[in-house]
Amino acid sequence: MSFNSNDARFMARAIQLAQKGWYTTRSNPRVGCVLVQIINQETQIIGEGWHQKPGLAHAEVNAIDNARENGHEVKGATAYVTLEPCSHFGKTPPCAQGLIDAGVSRVVCAMTDPNPQVSGRGMKMLREAGISVSSGLMEQEAKNLNLGFIKRMTKGLPRVVAKTAVSIDGRTAMASGESQWITGPEARAQVQRLRAQSGAVITGSGTVLFDNPSMNVRSTEFTGNPYFEQPIRVIIDSKHQIQPDASIFKSDGKCWLVSASQRELQISNDANVNLELHQVVKSQDGFVDLEAVLRELGSHGVNDVLIEAGSELLGAFLQRSLVDELQVFMAPKLLGSAARAMANLPFESMSQAINLEFKDVRQVGQDVKLTYNRVD
Amino acid sequence: MSFNSNDARFMARAIQLAQKGWYTTRSNPRVGCVLVQIINQETQIIGEGWHQKPGLAHAEVNAIDNARENGHEVKGATAYVTLEPCSHFGKTPPCAQGLIDAGVSRVVCAMTDPNPQVSGRGMKMLREAGISVSSGLMEQEAKNLNLGFIKRMTKGLPRVVAKTAVSIDGRTAMASGESQWITGPEARAQVQRLRAQSGAVITGSGTVLFDNPSMNVRSTEFTGNPYFEQPIRVIIDSKHQIQPDASIFKSDGKCWLVSASQRELQISNDANVNLELHQVVKSQDGFVDLEAVLRELGSHGVNDVLIEAGSELLGAFLQRSLVDELQVFMAPKLLGSAARAMANLPFESMSQAINLEFKDVRQVGQDVKLTYNRVD
Repeated sequence: MSFNSNDARFMARAIQLAQKGWYTTRSNPRVGCVLVQIINQETQIIGEGWHQKPGLAHAEVNAIDNARENGHEVKGATAYVTLEPCSHFGKTPPCAQGLIDAGVSRVVCAMTDPNPQVSGRGMKMLREAGISVSSGLMEQEAKNLNLGFIKRMTKGLPRVVAKTAVSIDGRTAMASGESQWITGPEARAQVQRLRAQSGAVITGSGTVLFDNPSMNVRSTEFTGNPYFEQPIRVIIDSKHQIQPDASIFKSDGKCWLVSASQRELQISNDANVNLELHQVVKSQDGFVDLEAVLRELGSHGVNDVLIEAGSELLGAFLQRSLVDELQVFMAPKLLGSAARAMANLPFESMSQAINLEFKDVRQVGQDVKLTYNRVD
Repeated sequence: MSFNSNDARFMARAIQLAQKGWYTTRSNPRVGCVLVQIINQETQIIGEGWHQKPGLAHAEVNAIDNARENGHEVKGATAYVTLEPCSHFGKTPPCAQGLIDAGVSRVVCAMTDPNPQVSGRGMKMLREAGISVSSGLMEQEAKNLNLGFIKRMTKGLPRVVAKTAVSIDGRTAMASGESQWITGPEARAQVQRLRAQSGAVITGSGTVLFDNPSMNVRSTEFTGNPYFEQPIRVIIDSKHQIQPDASIFKSDGKCWLVSASQRELQISNDANVNLELHQVVKSQDGFVDLEAVLRELGSHGVNDVLIEAGSELLGAFLQRSLVDELQVFMAPKLLGSAARAMANLPFESMSQAINLEFKDVRQVGQDVKLTYNRVD
């Protein structure tokens, strides 16, 4: 399969369009589409579209509509799509059929559908209609749009990013629990962004009891978008410590209260949220089975999970190898050796140490953000 | 004082030359000198010199000799020097007089002498001989050549860099002490460099007893230079735990064994080093007074000190605010919450936390090097 420089240019634009759905496609993939036609011997973009939100039109349909609104003829056009067009009826009709009906003559995909049960079917449908189809252009860039969606489609589990804020000496709070404002305002703004791009944010009962956070997205950069939906806030509460008067239940968005055994809870009337009680199987140690929590979130369509937890819960996720990416915001200070550990990991020998892969480091205000990937 | 673009070009070259003495000038400053003459209506470099080692000629004399060896006339030349020429007789005659005798007509300095007792005297001597003198060109770059020398001249104390190798969660070793190879070969190579540029390396008795290191410079990149001298290795041994059979006494270079009280020690005959016993005043807590150790090193001509110590001694230096620069080599792993702290700092409240200034971060192999400065 060979591509020319125009192909790369138009696919790059399609990827740019897909990114416009970064904070709103939630359970669906981020997809962009560009329609191109030769007009006056020049190859020109005639229509652009991207997916915005589950239930609304897919990228291909939006691009076709956009072309027609601008008075362009779609027949004979080339479509650049960041993901193989779907072949099945979901909340909307199959996009492959839409492209066929519109009369496009060529389709270039960045990647095939990651769902092994339907992968290749959209391209097959297009080819059987006589359309020239190729795939694999800027594939890695396209994958980076949908790391969570791809993981959920292939493994049934959401992608997990864990965020922590520490001092240079790896501490998150004083022994007393005192911890406010370790990192600066720029780092905290990035945490709003991390939450906004996640379908769910997981925290533990300790954090809810001690800090009483709302843990939702407050920045109008995200909440100002009419398609934006708050991530589900998931509280792991193995010991049934959380009461319904916590602040987290009084702010916008759904909450899950997850425990390892049956629980009755009188929901307070002034809680303006959808509080759901979830009972998840116990793991061997008697606590909530964390992988089961992730699997349940996956089955509810959550692609990306953010963990914002204290050292106990973060340690538990890390020790079970459930964290795909660790983001460490490091403040330029030393909290000292009596202060709280970043993650509770009771290792005795070097052979138990968790090795990660360094991915990225950057300055964030006065802090530094270090990003690491799990080593598989 | 105004400088032209040629001035900046020649001073940049002088700074480059000064850097050639980075690992060998030790108690002396790093200084470079460029001599410039107009030949055939073109401004050209006629001589270059830099200081190499205490006792050997200064940069200005080397540049004059270099010009003459190449058959050039120094009379009427302009001299670019990274530091104000000295006016006093030390191990060599005063450089200001050397420039006067050679007949230069103009001298451009990057910075004045940092020693308040002699600062300005060299320039005065030159001006009184009718030479045009200006100072301050690329001053910050020139200061960066000699941060340690400047600190010693102004405060009587060497500049202190502390180096530590930690995991992402800020741990240096397992509770058992197991610690080998936390960071990769690239980070360890940088530690050789840090040692090589220091007049002294300070460590504690715990490190010597547990790791039995030689702690000298082994890389031939440095030891291959005939002017290279090993840094003094200083062992803080408040409790008289170190015996003369330690490896550190059997390798090249001087050692100081520092304690807070009188000590008799039978030096082993096969120790091929200059082992000196230093008794330093006790601090209030009964241990060695660390500032007194630094002051004694300063009075022995040490400009730059490297601290390579375990959490006790590093914590003690940090808590007394004696560390100018902290270099943290961070390996992509988690050693866990039972592992040893980076620095022993028994703080109880956030108000005790040590705030540092972020200076630099870079990748070093698979590790990351974070550099912080003390906040004064």
